[in-house]
Amino acid sequence: MMRRASLALCCLVAGTAFAIGNSNRDKPPTTAKVLESATASDWRRPDPANTLYVELPGGRVIIELAPRFAPLHVANIRQLVAEKFFDGLGVMRVQDNFVAQWGDADKTRPTEAALRKIPDENAFAWSKALPFVKLPDADGYAPETGWIDGFPAGVERKPSGQAWMAHCYGVLGVGRDDWPDTGSGAELYVVIGQAPRQLDRNVVALGRVLRGMELLSSLPRGTGDGMGMYERPEQRVPISSIRLASDLPEAQRTAIEVLRTDTPLFARYVESRRNRQDAWYLMKAGHIDVCSVNIPVRDVPTR
Amino acid sequence: MMRRASLALCCLVAGTAFAIGNSNRDKPPTTAKVLESATASDWRRPDPANTLYVELPGGRVIIELAPRFAPLHVANIRQLVAEKFFDGLGVMRVQDNFVAQWGDADKTRPTEAALRKIPDENAFAWSKALPFVKLPDADGYAPETGWIDGFPAGVERKPSGQAWMAHCYGVLGVGRDDWPDTGSGAELYVVIGQAPRQLDRNVVALGRVLRGMELLSSLPRGTGDGMGMYERPEQRVPISSIRLASDLPEAQRTAIEVLRTDTPLFARYVESRRNRQDAWYLMKAGHIDVCSVNIPVRDVPTR
Repeated sequence: MMRRASLALCCLVAGTAFAIGNSNRDKPPTTAKVLESATASDWRRPDPANTLYVELPGGRVIIELAPRFAPLHVANIRQLVAEKFFDGLGVMRVQDNFVAQWGDADKTRPTEAALRKIPDENAFAWSKALPFVKLPDADGYAPETGWIDGFPAGVERKPSGQAWMAHCYGVLGVGRDDWPDTGSGAELYVVIGQAPRQLDRNVVALGRVLRGMELLSSLPRGTGDGMGMYERPEQRVPISSIRLASDLPEAQRTAIEVLRTDTPLFARYVESRRNRQDAWYLMKAGHIDVCSVNIPVRDVPTR
Repeated sequence: MMRRASLALCCLVAGTAFAIGNSNRDKPPTTAKVLESATASDWRRPDPANTLYVELPGGRVIIELAPRFAPLHVANIRQLVAEKFFDGLGVMRVQDNFVAQWGDADKTRPTEAALRKIPDENAFAWSKALPFVKLPDADGYAPETGWIDGFPAGVERKPSGQAWMAHCYGVLGVGRDDWPDTGSGAELYVVIGQAPRQLDRNVVALGRVLRGMELLSSLPRGTGDGMGMYERPEQRVPISSIRLASDLPEAQRTAIEVLRTDTPLFARYVESRRNRQDAWYLMKAGHIDVCSVNIPVRDVPTR
């Protein structure tokens, strides 16, 4: 919302200018400075076998699947992708400040995988052995929040002993009807608005968009049923294909890296978001919620 | 993200069906039931003198201004509108999960109002006399949150003695450069993503979109400067005019009402969002943050 200067990465120049006369040694680093100091090992390459490419008219949406959170549902989505279930279907629901959703809206493809009844994976068992990176800040929606395998997570050690994916911007979930249906993965949604944390543990969330969010978030909103359904089939946004990166030859893959969440650098990154050091900021928030920590993604650097 | 049934308003039928055999008397009401029970006095009509109509190619965005939060800036925006400053300008920045911003990108209109230096109104003085409706739930970004005049607000009674508008989805703010510039209102932004609460008290927020959010949130994202700038002037989304509703004849106004936030009904509405009663929900969040409470807007009912 700035006029010329702006947030984060783009404030580096202004931040440097402002620092004249101060001790740079004692000043906490800006986000840009933190990311500049990252080394190759602070980044990771998503497993191609867990990477979905959703091909839309506007381009490719890249989604990382999180098998630890919902192994049976991830396996079924892999099955659906293997049988090219989604090819030629479309996005049929875009509800403002909520979700974009795609799948077999007309139930024309009753394959075994699409109809599969899968046990509840809205949450999974907490264990101290989990690679949980805790965010120190309190969160009213969960006793603890942080990241597991690079995905935003809520944790309740007691009484439920559960962990789950937090419904943040860009999170992928499995559409379902009323309980006890858990959804097969034949309909999927991505969060395109304020984190709908009330969905946590109510529905299977099992991935996150790494690239191409704007291809979903900028779609026209639907007007049907008060829930953003496109009212006419021709309004649907066609999906030419959904594939696993591992099913494509190397040349057709998109080489990206994601900032690791289990490193000292990531802790510094979070701190730079909790208390912005850029010159533009007068007040530091002194707080951040898990869904406000955007995890950087970049092209694989050329050597 | 449901397959057929869905959230909130659209779950009423399913909710009713589920309740067979239960005692409806003891069951807390769903959001739909709460809103059904609203009477005319639970709704308010925004003051036309505080209502902006932003006319875009896709239609009208309706914004309510909040003069209590930033009286000098609201007055200057009224002045800019009176001189038709914005007519023929455009939206020049749309950054995914952040803001859509419009104004005089090329500085071609250096009017007195556009160049005016206005004192800081990033926050204003807290007073017990303020009509503050407190949300009981804790919020890490502010000691207290709730609503003032129907707008989401943060409050810090001590030590700062300040109140301010919380940067929620749909909030209107004033673009500025680095401090001590506070912005004149010649550039304005609307939040189109996860609530950027780190902006609270850093920038003047003074209104909220009541209708037409989807006309801003679905705009193509810009690719310039890492901050969503449209790189070519022809990409800008033209604004044919911005007017106050009070400057238009009655026939050209949009007759809408907003749910009041200072009523017992609103408290019940918030509770229905904190703990969803719709059949679709297995888990109740037991918590809500101020930016996750969408304040309903409706057409003025025909008698």
